[in-house]
Amino acid sequence: MNTSHYNPFAERINNVTPSFIREILQVTKQSDVISFAGGLPNEQLFPIEQLKKSSQKVFENYGSQLLQYSNTEGDLQLRQWIAKRYKRQNLHINVEDILISNGSQQALDLLGKVFINKNDPIIVENPGYLGALQAFRLYQAKFLGVDIHDNGMDITQLQQTLSSNKAKLIYAVPNFQNPTGISYSEENRQAIALEVAKTESYLIQDDPYGELRFSGEQKSNFMSLLPQQTILLGSFSKTIAPAFRLGWIVAPQEIMKKLVIAKQAADLHSNSFSQAILYQYLQDNNIDEHLKKLNHYYGQQKNIMETAIKQYFPQNTKLTNPEGGLFLWCSLDKKISTLELFKTAIKHNIAFVPGESFYTGKIEKNTMRLNYSGADSFAIEKGIKDLAKIIKTKSN
Amino acid sequence: MNTSHYNPFAERINNVTPSFIREILQVTKQSDVISFAGGLPNEQLFPIEQLKKSSQKVFENYGSQLLQYSNTEGDLQLRQWIAKRYKRQNLHINVEDILISNGSQQALDLLGKVFINKNDPIIVENPGYLGALQAFRLYQAKFLGVDIHDNGMDITQLQQTLSSNKAKLIYAVPNFQNPTGISYSEENRQAIALEVAKTESYLIQDDPYGELRFSGEQKSNFMSLLPQQTILLGSFSKTIAPAFRLGWIVAPQEIMKKLVIAKQAADLHSNSFSQAILYQYLQDNNIDEHLKKLNHYYGQQKNIMETAIKQYFPQNTKLTNPEGGLFLWCSLDKKISTLELFKTAIKHNIAFVPGESFYTGKIEKNTMRLNYSGADSFAIEKGIKDLAKIIKTKSN
Repeated sequence: MNTSHYNPFAERINNVTPSFIREILQVTKQSDVISFAGGLPNEQLFPIEQLKKSSQKVFENYGSQLLQYSNTEGDLQLRQWIAKRYKRQNLHINVEDILISNGSQQALDLLGKVFINKNDPIIVENPGYLGALQAFRLYQAKFLGVDIHDNGMDITQLQQTLSSNKAKLIYAVPNFQNPTGISYSEENRQAIALEVAKTESYLIQDDPYGELRFSGEQKSNFMSLLPQQTILLGSFSKTIAPAFRLGWIVAPQEIMKKLVIAKQAADLHSNSFSQAILYQYLQDNNIDEHLKKLNHYYGQQKNIMETAIKQYFPQNTKLTNPEGGLFLWCSLDKKISTLELFKTAIKHNIAFVPGESFYTGKIEKNTMRLNYSGADSFAIEKGIKDLAKIIKTKSN
Repeated sequence: MNTSHYNPFAERINNVTPSFIREILQVTKQSDVISFAGGLPNEQLFPIEQLKKSSQKVFENYGSQLLQYSNTEGDLQLRQWIAKRYKRQNLHINVEDILISNGSQQALDLLGKVFINKNDPIIVENPGYLGALQAFRLYQAKFLGVDIHDNGMDITQLQQTLSSNKAKLIYAVPNFQNPTGISYSEENRQAIALEVAKTESYLIQDDPYGELRFSGEQKSNFMSLLPQQTILLGSFSKTIAPAFRLGWIVAPQEIMKKLVIAKQAADLHSNSFSQAILYQYLQDNNIDEHLKKLNHYYGQQKNIMETAIKQYFPQNTKLTNPEGGLFLWCSLDKKISTLELFKTAIKHNIAFVPGESFYTGKIEKNTMRLNYSGADSFAIEKGIKDLAKIIKTKSN
């Protein structure tokens, strides 16, 4: 076989390279690195004993059917539980409108498959979640970035972008956004809904962190502001266990029918053994108690990091003020490139993600994403202090 | 929002409809139906007690890391086990060349994503596995069917198709093919390898049933006949437990790099909790003993079905003679449409899959796929006898 000039690959994958974050995360696996780079939930808080009990129980209760092929849409009881949970947000979701996916990531892939033709304009947050960019990029989407401010999306930019492009999808993480940690204000949400309602676009509310609130008040879900044009994503990865790879999509029937076809072609159905265990866990335990513990801890960690940054980082440092989730977003002096900073920091065993990785539009090179859920309090304090010293050498 | 004329969906999904088989399987879930329609392993043979023990053990051994995010390629130990297992076929597979996927189905989806541009010619078996067609169809492949005979692919057709089309991929299930149950002879494999070696095509050997042999001799793997052009797929769904959704892809590094990018965008990684349990099970149990039991049972079931068909079906019925796997392929008198037969049979609570569902090329309407792994011996005997009566009413 002569393979010297032949490129067998599909156009969609030729220009895609492994993500920079993936490379960073490989480096930070070394145990002597203090890492603010990942987006992992703290594994000390996994309900491991309870899940152990749940998994024993499903073996006893389900019999051999536990291990058989299952249906594409996902476990009916688990979907009923999800529908019921949304009632707390005054959302009335039909079980038929819920599909279990392999985490939110597969939800993004399935949506890409169902909606995106090459060069379709897709509005994304700038900066925004890399996993969504990665999923949609493989369907050759054309990204239109709309800047994210402290109170949410830039409405003027959104208006302009919507009026000059027929965007098929708008991708938004309104609660504790990745990477910035900000939440859209109530006014911002309403203004967005008003603009989107004038169009035929669908808004994807990706909500993996929605239940991880440690301060402030819950805001409106786009599913209530814009019910006919919202596709809602959820995940058990941040609240219970990422290893299960279980999330979900809520979408109206005409979209759900296509998603089910795409899901079937993608992997028939999500791991039904883990779905059964998860449902058993949710039956036998008080999820609100668990979330309370989680959020208390993450709130503390965020405060420790914030306090350390205010104490040690240069005075002109700017910081977002997350009310939940896993990330702080930090803007240094405009002269500082956080990519250069990263290269020095990693030599001193400190890792974070340089902000420029997250931009599709205008890049701010002086920004960085800091995760506070992974490291313990002592490591946060030490890591921030050491990082501050390195920043000061770069500021001179 | 005015949705009256707007079609928001991607071109790739617009003409795809839910599979007919899926609809059949919905009907056959009613417990009074004797179903030869599915392709499910017999759940009475799942090693449920052993997996229960393995799942307890991983909770004790792994600690909280068991539930954390994991790596895209899959559990290293599980991949090492797979590599080692291939040594029994004299295949030397590098662990780096193995990616864990959500069953073979996701492997097909990832391969479609990495290789297939719209209208790319893909050679498929005629008749062939619907799941592959479904996965590749969503990447808008152009299917070129090559007929399957009792000893494998039609070599003349393969030659002609390869010489008049630059087929990117050749999809083959050489062991106990779905739907026909036939295996490619050694000569046929060598002839195929010779033809493919003249081209730049990749041959996908999908091998979910390879370990389910109850008679005859193992034949060469394409990975040994055509190492640089073979992509090999495997699955634990038929041997251990479908609910885990665990399979794998073996591919050379230049392809593997693209597959890893596609897998990461698709769902980050496969369920790592189930990977740990599966590896534990493989450590603590003799898989060969388990497969021996499985194959003894399936061999018996196949014999019972074959005997009943020879006894009750019309004399001009033709039958394949599978040496393993889950399916028999039955050709009735050319005047009989099995689709019409199905409509009558289901009213009498007997289900099978009409053969025409599986064809991409020339259709033989008098064929049907019969699964012998799901029903018990008594049900097989009764179902075939009843089906024979219905066939006789159609023959008159």
